Amino acid sequence: MSVTTPAGFTASGVAAGLKSSGGDDVALVVNQGPTFDSASVFTANRCQANPVLWSKEVVKDGVVRAVVLNSGGANCYTGPEGFQTTHAVAERVGEHLGIGAVDVVVCSTGLIGLTNPRDKVLAGVDAAAAALAADGGDAAAHAIMTTDSVSKQAVVEGAGWSIGGMAKGAGMLAPALATMLVVITTDAVVPAADLDQALRAATRVSFDRLDSDGCMSTNDTVTVMASGASGITPALPDFTEALTQLCTDLAMQLLRDAEGSDHDIAITTLNAASEDDAVEVGRSVARSNLFKAAVFGKDPNWGRVLASIGTTSAAFDPADLDVAINGVWVCRRSTPDEDPTLVDLEAREVSVTIDLKSGSERATVWTNDLTHAYVHENSAYSS
Amino acid sequence: MSVTTPAGFTASGVAAGLKSSGGDDVALVVNQGPTFDSASVFTANRCQANPVLWSKEVVKDGVVRAVVLNSGGANCYTGPEGFQTTHAVAERVGEHLGIGAVDVVVCSTGLIGLTNPRDKVLAGVDAAAAALAADGGDAAAHAIMTTDSVSKQAVVEGAGWSIGGMAKGAGMLAPALATMLVVITTDAVVPAADLDQALRAATRVSFDRLDSDGCMSTNDTVTVMASGASGITPALPDFTEALTQLCTDLAMQLLRDAEGSDHDIAITTLNAASEDDAVEVGRSVARSNLFKAAVFGKDPNWGRVLASIGTTSAAFDPADLDVAINGVWVCRRSTPDEDPTLVDLEAREVSVTIDLKSGSERATVWTNDLTHAYVHENSAYSS
Repeated sequence: MSVTTPAGFTASGVAAGLKSSGGDDVALVVNQGPTFDSASVFTANRCQANPVLWSKEVVKDGVVRAVVLNSGGANCYTGPEGFQTTHAVAERVGEHLGIGAVDVVVCSTGLIGLTNPRDKVLAGVDAAAAALAADGGDAAAHAIMTTDSVSKQAVVEGAGWSIGGMAKGAGMLAPALATMLVVITTDAVVPAADLDQALRAATRVSFDRLDSDGCMSTNDTVTVMASGASGITPALPDFTEALTQLCTDLAMQLLRDAEGSDHDIAITTLNAASEDDAVEVGRSVARSNLFKAAVFGKDPNWGRVLASIGTTSAAFDPADLDVAINGVWVCRRSTPDEDPTLVDLEAREVSVTIDLKSGSERATVWTNDLTHAYVHENSAYSS
Repeated sequence: MSVTTPAGFTASGVAAGLKSSGGDDVALVVNQGPTFDSASVFTANRCQANPVLWSKEVVKDGVVRAVVLNSGGANCYTGPEGFQTTHAVAERVGEHLGIGAVDVVVCSTGLIGLTNPRDKVLAGVDAAAAALAADGGDAAAHAIMTTDSVSKQAVVEGAGWSIGGMAKGAGMLAPALATMLVVITTDAVVPAADLDQALRAATRVSFDRLDSDGCMSTNDTVTVMASGASGITPALPDFTEALTQLCTDLAMQLLRDAEGSDHDIAITTLNAASEDDAVEVGRSVARSNLFKAAVFGKDPNWGRVLASIGTTSAAFDPADLDVAINGVWVCRRSTPDEDPTLVDLEAREVSVTIDLKSGSERATVWTNDLTHAYVHENSAYSS
């Protein structure tokens, strides 16, 4: 159940003293081959952390042989000094593995503006390289946790091949990648171009539709590495389907562990004129602090759903909208319908269904409620 | 200090039993002339309440003789029945005043989806008409309060003329009008076309730049009525300046009374390539739950400011941004600079200054922090 489940990978997680808690904070995942194909997607934020600036160059040739990750500091907006730290980390990994630094993706997570002490990180890399093991995936997954309460891992089995993945992320989960680091491994034989196509298809309907708090991170990175160790080349649609399943599994784990959340909210928009319309409508509701606070208060406040829909450019008739909360159609034709007191919001899972009656497309966007605990965690994070 | 300060207006506020608290909930403001010029702006939300649908038709000819307002129910998404209630209210006001219903603006505020009991509202109109007084502005301002903790009123004096205003609004304050109802009166002689130009100029830099919680209402209405009772015709620039001053005064009163807020945050973006860029950047920060929670926690978290700026399409160099919080330049050239511990966030007023170094335009957007009390008030509002 980890990134070392597929054949051809080793991994490790060690403590380098970056986290004040003393917990593991440096992780390493290494592709042992025989193939080194890869694909990656990064945050759409124009303000990007040093590891992202570095890694975007690394991945351009479709070859990645290792991913090194640290928690305890995002290395974002730390200036030339910070970029040199990222570079030095990649170099050190390369030295240990006998590969080029240009094949090493670097990921960091933690506070923006915090410089990672270079000596500590490099010592961590040394320890992580020494600890590499064929069953090291679980240790790696724990070393990348920040405010995560649990590690996030998943495996999907193919016919003679498999995909493994790990993720971190608990807040700042937003569009065009939730704030998170994700490493995915497979022992299937998949050329880099196909990996890229599959990864974009998979993230588009999973991580990209997770919008926990509307905030977009500076460090998001998803990297998939294919070792080819199974010797099997799956049909691309089969591989894409399995990869989508894995990414959705990890995305749902991120949703369930979102900082301070009491509810997971799936907003499904039906009968939209286009998929983009459906996503825009879902995201508008996912961004409504008023609606999210209402869900926290177990109040099926459909008026706040309609008020959000009205801010979009999607095709719909404002006088003919239907809204269901947990299956109760509290609003039909834009007027009150079934009794809102029938809506039971005790459980963690909440579904909101919106019928735009303007086409045949649909999409689901996931978010969390807005809670006292969210405010607390995010007001106290750096102090 | 009210809408009855300018000559030529009467007003009243009465209790019609719409509010469960039993407080005043119906207000009436009447222009006694001799002129009846007016201008209005409404919510940009495509989902609009019945009173907005009605009033948008009323204002088209530039003549408004009375504004009737109720709290205790928004009359939004209440179907044909709700629209008929709005219409009946306008008719009843017209009967009392001997004017046409088509010259009566109707405003409602409260929960969406809640039908106002027609008999109660009409009885409230009867009582409000009977209570009209030349000093009734203060009573009217109190009758439109919902979760407001104080009434919002302002007066600006011109040379022999004046402008008075009242506003309600405490949550759901967002772009393209905060959620609010505003009635403005003046005894200056100002033709409707000039009033419209002045009102759009004034709201563009006041109410439109208030973004307390990112949520856009279905009921926002700002109406200005000119009685001409002073007999004085001010120069349009002078009138526009006074009206802008009045709208800004009311907007700041709304900001200070935003639901559950501990801090008022003024985000000023300097040296932008365009005013639109400056507004977009300011609004992105005003929408960051993470930054707003940090301010609540008195944490000068400039990393969350940069992460927000990075989500915009404004012109800037991600590696050359300066950010000051309460005058302390915690970030220069996108790297840490002055010591964040120098930032004192004890006071209610917080300033964030962003230097984009990409032009010479500027704009200020106002917001509030994200607090436990905000979550509490908005999770408990309808229950």
